[in-house]
Amino acid sequence: MQLLIIGGSDAGISAALRAREVDPSAEVTVLLDDDFTNYSICGLPFYLSGETPDWHSLAHRTEFEGIAIRRGHRATRIHTAAWTVEVQSDRVGACSFHYDKLLIGTGAGPVRPHVQGCGLPGVFPLHTMKDSFAVSEYLEKVKPGRAVIVGAGYIGLEMADALTHRGIEVTIASRTPTVLATVDQEFGSLVRAELEHHDVKVETGVEVHRIEQAGDHLHVVGSNGFEQECEMVLITVGVKPHSELGVTAGLKTGTKGALLTNRKMETEDPHIYVAGDCGETWHRILSRYTYLPLGTTAHRQGRTAGENAVGGNREFSGSLGTQVVKIFDLVIARTGLRHDEALAESFRPFTVESTVNDHKAYYPGASPLTIRVTGDFATGRLLGAQVLGRWGAEISKRLDIFATGLFHEMSVEQLSDLDLSYTPPLSSPWDPVQMAAQQWSRSLGKSKTEAIKAGHE
Amino acid sequence: MQLLIIGGSDAGISAALRAREVDPSAEVTVLLDDDFTNYSICGLPFYLSGETPDWHSLAHRTEFEGIAIRRGHRATRIHTAAWTVEVQSDRVGACSFHYDKLLIGTGAGPVRPHVQGCGLPGVFPLHTMKDSFAVSEYLEKVKPGRAVIVGAGYIGLEMADALTHRGIEVTIASRTPTVLATVDQEFGSLVRAELEHHDVKVETGVEVHRIEQAGDHLHVVGSNGFEQECEMVLITVGVKPHSELGVTAGLKTGTKGALLTNRKMETEDPHIYVAGDCGETWHRILSRYTYLPLGTTAHRQGRTAGENAVGGNREFSGSLGTQVVKIFDLVIARTGLRHDEALAESFRPFTVESTVNDHKAYYPGASPLTIRVTGDFATGRLLGAQVLGRWGAEISKRLDIFATGLFHEMSVEQLSDLDLSYTPPLSSPWDPVQMAAQQWSRSLGKSKTEAIKAGHE
Repeated sequence: MQLLIIGGSDAGISAALRAREVDPSAEVTVLLDDDFTNYSICGLPFYLSGETPDWHSLAHRTEFEGIAIRRGHRATRIHTAAWTVEVQSDRVGACSFHYDKLLIGTGAGPVRPHVQGCGLPGVFPLHTMKDSFAVSEYLEKVKPGRAVIVGAGYIGLEMADALTHRGIEVTIASRTPTVLATVDQEFGSLVRAELEHHDVKVETGVEVHRIEQAGDHLHVVGSNGFEQECEMVLITVGVKPHSELGVTAGLKTGTKGALLTNRKMETEDPHIYVAGDCGETWHRILSRYTYLPLGTTAHRQGRTAGENAVGGNREFSGSLGTQVVKIFDLVIARTGLRHDEALAESFRPFTVESTVNDHKAYYPGASPLTIRVTGDFATGRLLGAQVLGRWGAEISKRLDIFATGLFHEMSVEQLSDLDLSYTPPLSSPWDPVQMAAQQWSRSLGKSKTEAIKAGHE
Repeated sequence: MQLLIIGGSDAGISAALRAREVDPSAEVTVLLDDDFTNYSICGLPFYLSGETPDWHSLAHRTEFEGIAIRRGHRATRIHTAAWTVEVQSDRVGACSFHYDKLLIGTGAGPVRPHVQGCGLPGVFPLHTMKDSFAVSEYLEKVKPGRAVIVGAGYIGLEMADALTHRGIEVTIASRTPTVLATVDQEFGSLVRAELEHHDVKVETGVEVHRIEQAGDHLHVVGSNGFEQECEMVLITVGVKPHSELGVTAGLKTGTKGALLTNRKMETEDPHIYVAGDCGETWHRILSRYTYLPLGTTAHRQGRTAGENAVGGNREFSGSLGTQVVKIFDLVIARTGLRHDEALAESFRPFTVESTVNDHKAYYPGASPLTIRVTGDFATGRLLGAQVLGRWGAEISKRLDIFATGLFHEMSVEQLSDLDLSYTPPLSSPWDPVQMAAQQWSRSLGKSKTEAIKAGHE
């Protein structure tokens, strides 16, 4: 059994490892278009901040026993009838690889916005190892004093932190009304305050139109009178799926042009699987497919595809959109649906924000957690949660209690039935997760009572 | 509706608050035999270490709106036919309280071991606020240089930390083969090493026989040649239920003399509920009652009883034995069944220990977590988990992912289906919980293959 995998990042390598684990006799080959096998893209901001001095350490894995890794092998065409993939390689020229099963794990690439001057020196996307080397070289050589970051998503905010860490003055320009549109605006405002506290200039509601060379610096111009001089611009406005190879092989696409699969990661071609950022994602709460490119999802989809490619019968359990980011000293985590996301679906979201200490106040070092719980007004079902607080307050794994609850379709009320761990330096007899859930229930009860009263008057 | 509650600690106060929340018209009275309403017993070691300077801050709550709190009111007898409770009070003398519903939440008290000299000055139990005041006064006045702690459970080890924090030389004497018998011995050994690293002397397999006054110090003598001079002895060898009041009211007892209830916290007397450490606990994995006194459980049982006492219909969701403790810089957490506990039941436990970093090694400050996963060899069901590592590595709430998985009867394999949060400073694309689960599955596969081979030879 020959399993050929196009792409050697999270999805591709997870699939390769799982396939070998399930069927040690499988011949697994991974084609990489660059030289970087399963590097952590999420780690690039820390490499560029200087916190991770050696980029080699960004490799998620360095052992690929039993897997044939072909670096610098760019797949150019899939021949579905012949079960072969055409490959272009600088080292060995054009060649062809046979497959019994093929996995497309080509990932995603940065969206190029309609901004004039994107090609100027000093203007960079940031998605690949190669991008990061270019940025790193520029930082070392030019030593920019000011940077503009276009976009206020995860990577943009992490880079604002990273460049500030290097002593660079940072301005963020974002189209969105606040930063970090993946959480409720109330949280976005708190994140913005943290950025500003660290002297990052935040300009929201700004559409960047053009970047001009002006002597030894760059001049960035946007809507609402936005103008900023700087020596460096980072464009971080999201990603789009690398689905071209699949499309030319006749595979169908859906949301944002991502390749379609079923929950077994199979395509309409019985020999081809798709996993990771080039394909759609089954959303566990929405019970439908969407586009939600994340490294964690790519790992899980890859593992599912790898198992099924060698004869397994596993279904991808779906995504909840669970994410966490650390910006300076603040950690912000989310899972499930935001209030507005739930509203756009067939839910009737009810959201309550609580602030509770991460552990008993009598033990030194307690810090407040702000927790937003979104549940359905009618059914009481938990729909999503967001947690924000200081780094070190077990925010990420606390959020995961909500994520595990969502996985099992728990009601908000049922969270108080969980037997969670407590010691005064680390929690309270009711964990903050449960206190927030109880606050949600109390607010719901009050709101329902008021609704009934209003109806009777 | 008059709800009378005997006991104003975790169970009693949780019940009172929940009853008022569900039925604001309920008249709720709480009888306390001392003056300390819902103080955190778990906080006593931190008060005695000096980390929590003001004991007043140990109160879990200070607001009891709408609840009549009767301090210094000791319930002496329940008249089940008359629906009254006889009370003795230093302030108002003997009196009687009527109830429509009664909750017994009398808690537990320390076990007094068969040790001669337990009554000597300088020898203390540690369970109540009053105990802690006596210890505190002794610490201030006598300024002991050496202490012996009899027992190596949670409170004993926390007190070893606390007294070391005060500059006292500590010796632990325990009957058990290692410390912290609530986790597997492999973890007990690691905890012992942490204690010894902080100059705590640990003597295991020792039965303390007697304590003698010898001039200005105490002489502690035990089995296996144990002899230790000191100025202070703490006896922390576990607790037993305060079930006497219930027994004289005709209620039945079970494990360790704890009062029997059903999952609604009802007793055989339709007017009497029981919650907290004076009663048994329904164990969610064992599907039967056991004795497992914990503050978290008392809170949840109390909430259930309070809701049901005013007409609710809630079932206690059960205990998983989830616990966490911080000893010096080490955090140790457990949930579900230990290997030996599972073996004693109808399970076929298979336990695998893994060591993985809490977050990506390329981001500064990564530290190893040791994770023990116990699952059923035949069914793959998750039975329990234990996590040990450095304080700050999100151990407690990571353990809670296992606890939430156990709550939902997940298989070990299914843990990899969870959508958990990841950012390099806080986790890995597969959370350590999932990496440990995958290691368990791999070890199981290997073990099954070997078993088959052995069978065929």
